[in-house]
Formats: sequence, structure tokens, C-alpha cells
Amino acid sequence: MKINQNFLNVQDSYLFSTIAKKVDEFIKANPDKKSNIIKLGIGDVTLPLCDAVIKAMHMAVDEMSNKDSFKGYGPEQGYGFLKDNLVSYYKRRNVELQSGEIFISDGAKSDLGNILDIFDVNNTVLVTDPVYPVYVDTNIMAGRKIVYADANENNGFLPLPDYKVKSDIIYLCSPNNPTGAVYDKKGLKCWVDYALKNNAVILFDAAYEYFVDDNNLPKSIYEIDGAKNCAIEFCSFSKTAGFTGTRCGYTIVPFELVFDGVKLNKLWNRRQTTKFNGVPYIVQKGAAAVFTEAGEAQIKKNIEIYKENAKIIADGLDELGIWYTGGKNSPYIFLKCPKNMKSWEFFDYLLENVNVVGTPGSGFGKNGEGFFRLTAFGDRLKTIEAVKRIKNLLK
Amino acid sequence: MKINQNFLNVQDSYLFSTIAKKVDEFIKANPDKKSNIIKLGIGDVTLPLCDAVIKAMHMAVDEMSNKDSFKGYGPEQGYGFLKDNLVSYYKRRNVELQSGEIFISDGAKSDLGNILDIFDVNNTVLVTDPVYPVYVDTNIMAGRKIVYADANENNGFLPLPDYKVKSDIIYLCSPNNPTGAVYDKKGLKCWVDYALKNNAVILFDAAYEYFVDDNNLPKSIYEIDGAKNCAIEFCSFSKTAGFTGTRCGYTIVPFELVFDGVKLNKLWNRRQTTKFNGVPYIVQKGAAAVFTEAGEAQIKKNIEIYKENAKIIADGLDELGIWYTGGKNSPYIFLKCPKNMKSWEFFDYLLENVNVVGTPGSGFGKNGEGFFRLTAFGDRLKTIEAVKRIKNLLK
Repeated sequence: MKINQNFLNVQDSYLFSTIAKKVDEFIKANPDKKSNIIKLGIGDVTLPLCDAVIKAMHMAVDEMSNKDSFKGYGPEQGYGFLKDNLVSYYKRRNVELQSGEIFISDGAKSDLGNILDIFDVNNTVLVTDPVYPVYVDTNIMAGRKIVYADANENNGFLPLPDYKVKSDIIYLCSPNNPTGAVYDKKGLKCWVDYALKNNAVILFDAAYEYFVDDNNLPKSIYEIDGAKNCAIEFCSFSKTAGFTGTRCGYTIVPFELVFDGVKLNKLWNRRQTTKFNGVPYIVQKGAAAVFTEAGEAQIKKNIEIYKENAKIIADGLDELGIWYTGGKNSPYIFLKCPKNMKSWEFFDYLLENVNVVGTPGSGFGKNGEGFFRLTAFGDRLKTIEAVKRIKNLLK
Repeated sequence: MKINQNFLNVQDSYLFSTIAKKVDEFIKANPDKKSNIIKLGIGDVTLPLCDAVIKAMHMAVDEMSNKDSFKGYGPEQGYGFLKDNLVSYYKRRNVELQSGEIFISDGAKSDLGNILDIFDVNNTVLVTDPVYPVYVDTNIMAGRKIVYADANENNGFLPLPDYKVKSDIIYLCSPNNPTGAVYDKKGLKCWVDYALKNNAVILFDAAYEYFVDDNNLPKSIYEIDGAKNCAIEFCSFSKTAGFTGTRCGYTIVPFELVFDGVKLNKLWNRRQTTKFNGVPYIVQKGAAAVFTEAGEAQIKKNIEIYKENAKIIADGLDELGIWYTGGKNSPYIFLKCPKNMKSWEFFDYLLENVNVVGTPGSGFGKNGEGFFRLTAFGDRLKTIEAVKRIKNLLK
């Protein structure tokens, strides 16, 4: 048996293990500082699931305990009750979807990787740099060629298509991880036009759409004319409703999406019915509760807390005159390291001087060098304290 | 963008849709018979989750409602508490595993498909026929060559390796779906020897292992010497604990498993950390409860009910002198259609005359022609009634 040799080309990611190692070493050298450390590098939610979701899951667990209400295999594509909620959710944003275009998944990460099954290996992939590493690693595993679009200070970390560069599969993440930058309609339209012109498919990662409250910024790529003919959208309850450990997302494959004369919806449906068995009934019931009146109010409240954290960080950086993207319409803040420091240099500087931990931008690609990611998912009081310390250090 | 053309070679499966259509047509023509129909074709569990699992899941839901006990992203490979339970479960069967060899998944079906990511396309796949269609379809999607080992009446639907046939990836399912046949240690040893000799990997689907109570029949392929050097084992809580709609399974990739100088464990770990985000915490807590004293007693009771159903069917066939495999150590019974009927002919014959629905064996491959699958997952009283009707019809 021959292994897939492409796996040997995937680079081991040492980003988060190096961070953990450096923090451990610091604590060892300074045991008295241990309790003083504040982590603002975390990309995981910290607020518990909201009451409506908890109630719905308890009810669903009870249903599973009774022969008459017990649920065995469900539809691989997800239950109608959840898909119907999503159709309504998009309709409120003037995007018309059909239930059959929605596939409930165990999270955006899984589907962003698995979707590649339906594409030929001989396609060129375009990613923006800095980048969420999953886009790159999944394609290296499959042996695809990857080209990079530079995101940097000049373009506000929102690169536009270069018609001289030919690509077939384009990853866009907006609001962006790690930069927090958000495309406006004009920017996204440029990518849709490029994709339509070049017969390319856009894989649109909308995992952070719920953080957008500026009406001029699209939450879905389908707000752009022509997108249904060139784009698949991936979204998740992870950041919207705190589902990182509960696992539920969804993927939208419009019926209009046709390549080589074949509907991608049909291919993806075949992939999912063959290699997937659906999301737990209990979890789907929890996700559906997000769309009840109570659920919506509760998750909005949580998102507001994270957004206020982002604002606290952004305001601090504004006072210091530090350049950054994100902080608005996004849980991420991507700041330019002061005093021309490199990413890891600034990491050490913050850790040693004010015991604050963030994520070096260089870990996300070459254009991240000299930048640094802070996130809004931390505790409120700790966020305030961290910003106070950073301001004292840098002012 | 070019699609993966291999998808166009996957045949649409009409097996279960044709069954549904035929039943619908029968009801339309005979509306008075509707309530009389008994379905014994179902491959899904019908008994609710046991109390220990229900309690554990309620507790886990409550943990998710509290900031201090809330769980965000968990390990992609699964939580230690569940993996430790599995290490103990295997130890009781004299199989020594390490926690790092176990990967918790959302079900055997997902992993049986996804595991192919780590293998080169240029490997020859061997499946037994009749076959669980997922083994075939996932490899056609990837463009691999498939060879078939004939399972039939002569070999008791338990084919042994043919050294003249070269293969690299071997699927074995024991207890088998759809035939219910179970390899003994000698039979499995033949396959392990063949794999070791031919540098092949065995993908061992043990989804029905919990139905084995004959100590001479292996529940795990690792009961066979040398298997850790050639086999990956897939298992699931679906049939063991009624998790078909709750979704949890596990995959064992031994550290000894090395091909092309590379540990498959490392490759699979890379695949899972890149394309998967773990199973819901709530579900893993439910799965762990299966291994408590109460949980074990409760799931055993459920399995006994299904086994007794299987015995009722098998005893009926014995009385009629009908040849079959399974019925013991398996929830499936694969019977030879009487009067030399073909599979679909017998399907119609049972439906029309005694209103019993089963699954035509021909739907699982050419060697299934002339055979018919009944399952033990139905209701007790209906199973008794169905067998009574079949006996009256055929005696």
C-alpha cells in the first residue's frame, strides 16, 4: 500500500505549540507572574450556551429516551426544521435560498476541507495571505497548486483579484480570520466578477458574519449579484452561538452552480450521503433554538459582549495611534507591531513586560510578519486590564 | 474549475428508494393492507437511548450552560475520558491499546470514507461482494481500482484471500453487513497473513462487534497476531448503544502501522486535526456513560432484545429448512430465497402475500442475487408476527 505522499509536504504548525511553550517557559522563570498572565490570543468562545439552546437540548435528550420520540438515522443533509430556519434567516437579509441548497454540517472546518472531494486535483487554488491554515493544508494534502494574494497594509488586508493570475478555486474569509478585515460589496463584487470571468469557484467562509452590523458590509456572498453562479458559502454556529464544542455549521451550494455541465449541489449531496451521516439530532435541535425569539435575543447579547471587548481593544490602540484592521464587525484585531518590531519580538515584549499573550501574525503567512492578533473572546475585566497594561507600556 | 470526474462514475443507489416506491405502490393498490405491513428491512435501531446515556447527556448539557464548566473546542482526537474507557474496554478483551491510537469520530461511515485521504490513489482496493456500498462508492469517487472477492453459499459468505489477486487496501466487515456472517480467528488470520505478505492495509469494520457473544469469534481484528502491523479498526456506538442519530464512533490506528516508512497514525492525526474539529462534548459524555456499570447493563439488555429478535427469525427459517447466514452474533439474517426465486422476486412475493418488507440481497452486489436480508432491529411483536406469516406462506 502506498501512502498519499502529499501529506509529507504539509508543514507541521508550531504556532500555538510555540506560544504555549514560550508561556510555560516564562512562568517557570517567573512563577510569581503566573496568575498575572492574560491570554488574548484565544480564538475560542468563552461564554456558555444561551438558555434557549440549553432548554432545546434538554428536550431533545428527553426525546431520545422515549421509544416513540427516539430519533435514529436522520437525513445526511440535516433536518428540515433547521434548514427552514436558515432559509428564513437568509430571507431576512434578502437572500433567497431553497432548503435543498443547505447542508447541515458538524462545522465549517470539516466542510471547508471535505468540499475539495468534488474538485479535480488539477485546479489552481488561490488563498489570501495571511491565511487560516486549513485552506492551505487541505489542498497540499490533495496535491493542488496554491497561489497567494498578498493582503497587507496597503490594501487594508483586503486584496482584490489580479486578472494576470489564473486560479480555479478561491478562498475568501470575510470577516477575516486572522485579520478581522471585512470586504464591502464593491470588493466582493470584484471577486465574483473575476470568478465568473475565469470559471472559478469561490469558497466563502462566513464563520464570523454574525459580528457584522454595518449594513454596507455583506454578511453573505449571495448579497452580491452573480454569486450564486460561482460561490459556495460556509458558515457555523461556533462563533454565532458558542458552538465550538457543540459542533454545528452549514454549507450552501446553490442549484445555479454548474461546472463541466454538472450541478455542484448534486456532487456535494453525493459526497455527504456517502461519507457523512448527519449532525446529532440533539445538536440540530439546539441550533434551531438560536432562531427562536428568546434564542436570538440571547445570542445577540453574547455577541455584544464580545463586540464591546473588541471595541475596548480598538479604542486602546486608537489612543496609542497603532494601525490595525478589524475590531469592528469582527472579533479579531490585527495590529501593526509598534517600533517596527517583528511579530515574535512583540510577542515576547508583551509577555515579558505586561504578561499579555497574543498571536504573532507571522504564524498566518509571510504578510503577517510585523503584525499581531488579539481577540475579543476573553473575559471582560481581563480585556480591560490587558489594554490598560498595553497602553501603559506603549504610550 | 474542473470537477472531480470520478464522481460521474458513482452509480446512483436505487435500492432503498426502489423499496420505498414498491411499498408505496402496493399501499396505493391495497389501501386496506397499509396497517398490516411489517418492515424488517430496516438497518436502524429502534430502542431509545439507555438511562445512563440520557443522564450523562443531561449533565453535559448543564455543564455547557455554566461559564465555569462550559466546553469550547475539544481535542480533535476526542476527550481522554472517553478514550480511556475504550482502552479499558479493549483490555478486558485482551487487546492492549494506547490512548493515542484511538480517534473518536462522528461515526464509522465518516471515517471509513475519510481514511482514504491518507492513501495514494494508485492502490488497488479489495472488497467482498455482497458489500456495504460505502466501501465501493468512496473509492470510485477517488478513482481507485476495485477488485471483488466473491462471498457466496460455498464459502458461507466468508471469502478467504486469493494470493493470485494483488490488492493494497482490503475492506473486511465482521459481523458482516449485509450477510451477518462472522469470521472466526482462523479466517481473519488468513487475511492478516495475506495483508502482511502483500504489504496491504486492512480496514476492519467492527460496527457490529457487540452482537458477538461466541468467544471463539473475534470482536476485534487485534485479537489476531500481527494485525496491529496491517489493520485499522473502525467501530461505532450506533448499533452498540443506539447512537445512529446521536453520532459517535471511533477509529483505531496502531502505532505499529507503518507504510512507506511513515506511521499511519501520524498521517491520520494530521488529517483529523486539519479537517475535523472533534465530536460534540455532550455526545462524548453520553458515549462514556456506556462504560459505566449501569450503562453496560442497560445496553446489554437492549442488545439482548435485538438478538432475541434475530433468534426468532432464524428459528423460523430453520423450521422451514431455509439456508441463511447470520442470525447469531449479528443483527442481520441473509437468507437464500426459496423456490429459486431472485431477490426482487422474493421481495414482491413477501410484500404481496404476507405484507412483510425486507431488503433484496442483489442490492448489495452480484453475489447477493437470490438472497434476501432481514434485520433484528424491529419491534418484538411485529417480528414474531412477520415470522409467523412467512412460515404460513412457505411451509
